[in-house]
Amino acid sequence: MAATEVLNGLQFFEGVEKLLEIWFTTSDGNHKTADLRKIPRHKLEALMKIVRCEIISYVKNDQIDAYVLSESSMFVSKRRFILKTCGTTTPLLCLEPLLLMAEQYAGFTEVEDLYYSRKNFKRPDLQVTPHQHFDQEVALLDTLFPDGAAYCLGAVNRDCWYLYTLNPIPQRLPSLPNPDEPDQTLEIMMTDLDPEIMSIFTKEECLNATEATKKAGIDKIIPNMIIDDFLFNPCGYSMNGVTKNGCYMTIHITPEPDFSYVSFETNVPSSSYKEIISKVLETFNPGKFTVTVFSNQLSPTKDTSKELLFLNQLADWQRRDVQQCSIKNYDLVYAFFCRFPS
Amino acid sequence: MAATEVLNGLQFFEGVEKLLEIWFTTSDGNHKTADLRKIPRHKLEALMKIVRCEIISYVKNDQIDAYVLSESSMFVSKRRFILKTCGTTTPLLCLEPLLLMAEQYAGFTEVEDLYYSRKNFKRPDLQVTPHQHFDQEVALLDTLFPDGAAYCLGAVNRDCWYLYTLNPIPQRLPSLPNPDEPDQTLEIMMTDLDPEIMSIFTKEECLNATEATKKAGIDKIIPNMIIDDFLFNPCGYSMNGVTKNGCYMTIHITPEPDFSYVSFETNVPSSSYKEIISKVLETFNPGKFTVTVFSNQLSPTKDTSKELLFLNQLADWQRRDVQQCSIKNYDLVYAFFCRFPS
Repeated sequence: MAATEVLNGLQFFEGVEKLLEIWFTTSDGNHKTADLRKIPRHKLEALMKIVRCEIISYVKNDQIDAYVLSESSMFVSKRRFILKTCGTTTPLLCLEPLLLMAEQYAGFTEVEDLYYSRKNFKRPDLQVTPHQHFDQEVALLDTLFPDGAAYCLGAVNRDCWYLYTLNPIPQRLPSLPNPDEPDQTLEIMMTDLDPEIMSIFTKEECLNATEATKKAGIDKIIPNMIIDDFLFNPCGYSMNGVTKNGCYMTIHITPEPDFSYVSFETNVPSSSYKEIISKVLETFNPGKFTVTVFSNQLSPTKDTSKELLFLNQLADWQRRDVQQCSIKNYDLVYAFFCRFPS
Repeated sequence: MAATEVLNGLQFFEGVEKLLEIWFTTSDGNHKTADLRKIPRHKLEALMKIVRCEIISYVKNDQIDAYVLSESSMFVSKRRFILKTCGTTTPLLCLEPLLLMAEQYAGFTEVEDLYYSRKNFKRPDLQVTPHQHFDQEVALLDTLFPDGAAYCLGAVNRDCWYLYTLNPIPQRLPSLPNPDEPDQTLEIMMTDLDPEIMSIFTKEECLNATEATKKAGIDKIIPNMIIDDFLFNPCGYSMNGVTKNGCYMTIHITPEPDFSYVSFETNVPSSSYKEIISKVLETFNPGKFTVTVFSNQLSPTKDTSKELLFLNQLADWQRRDVQQCSIKNYDLVYAFFCRFPS
């Protein structure tokens, strides 16, 4: 997506996103009038400047504001802020100003939950501080959050996925507040993609985003989404989809064969994510992919996330790593698959 | 254990062990005549010199040779080699000579499985290269093993546990050889221990190891073990226990209040490790502890290791982290517990 960087005559773009999700609350837990969407647009734009990207499109309904960025996406709802940015963006640098804006404009004084995650970069050396190393990112986050816990799932020396989240010291049971709403997130991060499919996401093959969305079958992965899609010049693709009740999906595509990358993410509840995962794999046909599923106790996905633990094989892909991790109110499953050697 | 180091007038000893376990085989899988116990004693002594420790005691039966070292323990059986060393020892430096000795004297030409693991050090800066950082250790291991996978379980920025193991690229199913024997390992790594209990492991309070073993109740944790124990001067304790059929247990104690550490490890099969864990906790009363359980498909422990996943609370301790990881033939459960805030 966006402009690729040219280094030593070699073109490169880091498709792998940094994903920041924050749930806000107030000190008394009463947030009837607080709303992140009260943050003025020009303030969001100033925030994106710090992150080194900009807003290029958006759709809104009464549940959620969904922005397409020059580098990926941003979703703003009443008390949840999601910022997903690829390339050499610096989302952690916007944390302090964001917390101030959330207080000043939206009426939120507390961070209830925070998740910062990313796959290992293909070229960490090309990132901007503090994003060159997870240790750097953790050090920055640790200065802001005393209860932060940093995890690495998967093989540190091969493909892995980093997560920083708040995991306060437990008190005597019942220690943890029960979640007040069901929540789940499915993310699929794909590399080594089918070059024929990737060529759809170029201006050479498609006139515009709508054509690419249809041709690839992206509109059929989760039907009935209001889609806001963007085809970059000369290549690259982003889309946000939102439902009436505030669910989202988002796809970002870096199609270049040397560093192809596609990410898929949704919080649509489902009693089985296996079907959505299969549709995504059919749509993009990756050589390797990472799946993560977060689900809290109220989520209908809670049990289905366990499916992944027993799924040694998924069509043409063999599972190479699987890990499970419990954090606060969420169960998290991580799995990494490779295509069978041909 | 062993001599503590004096730095800037402050005494410190790193109780946290580096644990290396290797299973050998031959290229044709036939290892009737091969046996690691054919490696001559003086060769083992030369190996320990590289590791920066020495053999101080041993017991043997027809299944296993169990050595107490100046820094922890070594267990040698027909095709399994276990080296567990604390302080500033350098076990990874002995890998290449060990592989040569296994071929030259014992008749083993292949490494079937390898596990290198350790808790995060209290003072990584005092370690000797390559043990100052897990990345360094992984880099060294990666030069020797093309199929190595490195994991970090637990919170990278708090208490965590590192593992390097062989996890070859999967082939089409059925890809993995079934294990040919049941195997399991329970390890408990404890910090912030009860000072009154720790004082047992000093020459001031006990005349010798036998007295310390009895007084602390170590002989009652797993009965019917042949025990080889050692009380260091002025303080510190090590013990190996072996059973007739070749199972082992081993305990190592660094009793100093400023850096107290106790490790417990056994491969005794059990349909529930909860009882052994409870006995160990009662015996040492730690402020914090890490538990890891490895079990393969044939192990009677296989199901019980899942118990840990659902154990939010264990007597006075609250679970702070739990993770599950599948590697080759083994299921691995990691959990970290803290005493409830008083």
